[in-house]
Amino acid sequence: MRVVTLGTSAGRPTAQRSASAVALEYEGDVILFDCGEGTQAQLARSPLRWGNINAIFIGHLHGDHVNGLPGILGTFSLTDRTMPLKVFGPPGIKRYLEILQEIKTVWINFPVEIIEIRKSGTLLDEKKYQVETARLDHVIECWGYVFREKPRPGHFDEAKAEALKIPHGPLRSRLVQGQSITLENGQVIAPQEIVGPPRPGRSVAYCLDTCPCENAIFLARGTDLLIHESTFDDSLREEMKKWGHSTSGQAAETALKAKSRRLILTHISPRYAEPELLLKEAKGIFPEAEMAWDLNEFIVESAE
Amino acid sequence: MRVVTLGTSAGRPTAQRSASAVALEYEGDVILFDCGEGTQAQLARSPLRWGNINAIFIGHLHGDHVNGLPGILGTFSLTDRTMPLKVFGPPGIKRYLEILQEIKTVWINFPVEIIEIRKSGTLLDEKKYQVETARLDHVIECWGYVFREKPRPGHFDEAKAEALKIPHGPLRSRLVQGQSITLENGQVIAPQEIVGPPRPGRSVAYCLDTCPCENAIFLARGTDLLIHESTFDDSLREEMKKWGHSTSGQAAETALKAKSRRLILTHISPRYAEPELLLKEAKGIFPEAEMAWDLNEFIVESAE
Repeated sequence: MRVVTLGTSAGRPTAQRSASAVALEYEGDVILFDCGEGTQAQLARSPLRWGNINAIFIGHLHGDHVNGLPGILGTFSLTDRTMPLKVFGPPGIKRYLEILQEIKTVWINFPVEIIEIRKSGTLLDEKKYQVETARLDHVIECWGYVFREKPRPGHFDEAKAEALKIPHGPLRSRLVQGQSITLENGQVIAPQEIVGPPRPGRSVAYCLDTCPCENAIFLARGTDLLIHESTFDDSLREEMKKWGHSTSGQAAETALKAKSRRLILTHISPRYAEPELLLKEAKGIFPEAEMAWDLNEFIVESAE
Repeated sequence: MRVVTLGTSAGRPTAQRSASAVALEYEGDVILFDCGEGTQAQLARSPLRWGNINAIFIGHLHGDHVNGLPGILGTFSLTDRTMPLKVFGPPGIKRYLEILQEIKTVWINFPVEIIEIRKSGTLLDEKKYQVETARLDHVIECWGYVFREKPRPGHFDEAKAEALKIPHGPLRSRLVQGQSITLENGQVIAPQEIVGPPRPGRSVAYCLDTCPCENAIFLARGTDLLIHESTFDDSLREEMKKWGHSTSGQAAETALKAKSRRLILTHISPRYAEPELLLKEAKGIFPEAEMAWDLNEFIVESAE
């Protein structure tokens, strides 16, 4: 499970940073958060198998978060993709893609389901993970996301299983699935004798663009990784409510309040060619902060 | 006067080629033909002073020719541009930009005039140059363009002017402007005694996307530089009428029929990672053919 920061600039691409987009790869699936201009070119430069993108989550409709979406849909069509794709975003995204299709800017010839977000809650419920959303606090309607891996089976006590002479195969699988088994000698074994308690799943929150708000803390609560916007430095704290953005220090405060394990700063204003200041401010509040650059890779590990 | 091929790929960007866009720089003005995804990033990598873009000509509304337009308008707004901009394109482009503004994908805070093309003819008439359009033959409505520098003053015969003792300053200027002058000694001098016949202006045609057609030849007639799509190789000639594209050989035939002086092949299908074949086919018909790569620079010179 890894996160690749494809584009890390705020407002517009620069020579160093492409517009906003983050990919999360989980057991072969690839999920995209935002899709700024240049995202498909960044995907081509990344190690990701981006034909495997199964869902795209657009936080809000500002161009620096969505201008790459028409192109990626067109490229999937040109390259004869057949795998279905889900696109989530705020109300307006359906009309946006419909009109672009009408005027032939976008050509779609594979199954795309466009889902407009109407309320907080679970958007995507796959076998091994879920993606939830909550409304952020930006100048236009904007949604944040959290990816939650479902609890994983507990640790299997191999030594004890050998001692009890439990044969490899279906009986062991049933224990892992939480069922009791009966051995050939008539002995009944309960799953908890061999299998530890379920391990919590890993989680990644995505909070762009927003000023500090309760829902960002809610989404980030206890996550293994929080990807948070950090558009400006702390000298501009007073402006953030008005501008709908966060400083690096405010991003760090959200991570701290949410008890996230790790914070990635992204959506960096082009005014900071060398954003050491932003990282320093964040680390002063939340030491596990890191600065994202384009095409950085972050492996997501759980606490245990 | 130079042309920079910003993006040279057909259909979608690749790791080597960005989507379609060509810049023409003329005495400080910059004109853009098409604006595919990634154009602003390519401009940032180019030597052009792209804040000086005064007109953008979109040939047709397929995404690989227009997906970069919202981003560039947004960036001009973010960077406090005040200089007016004209955007020309086929009908639909107004609605496209209006809707993107409605849903806040594009934010425009400087004067942008959007002009939908309804017929062939002159679109832009500046002091020193014009841009004309004619309809091409593609699968959707598509317009080609020709940039024509206005005739330049003829050669000024410095030696003869000295011999006749014509003083530097206003008198010489009036000769260049085509007026007769009277010297202090009463001698009348006609402009044609000192100034040669007006030299023809330089010209550049832009024909993307199109299958071979009379209007492409019309636009390219006698140009110093023809930028023509060359999506496929000559083995696919039979398909071009149906696909609305040209092979490299067909692009060369258009250059030959139009008596262009030079041909640049662009809009290369991603299937040709090494497009030597396309260049070879074109050169076999029109030796002054060249292959465009991203960020190539072509100086435009006149025949004389």
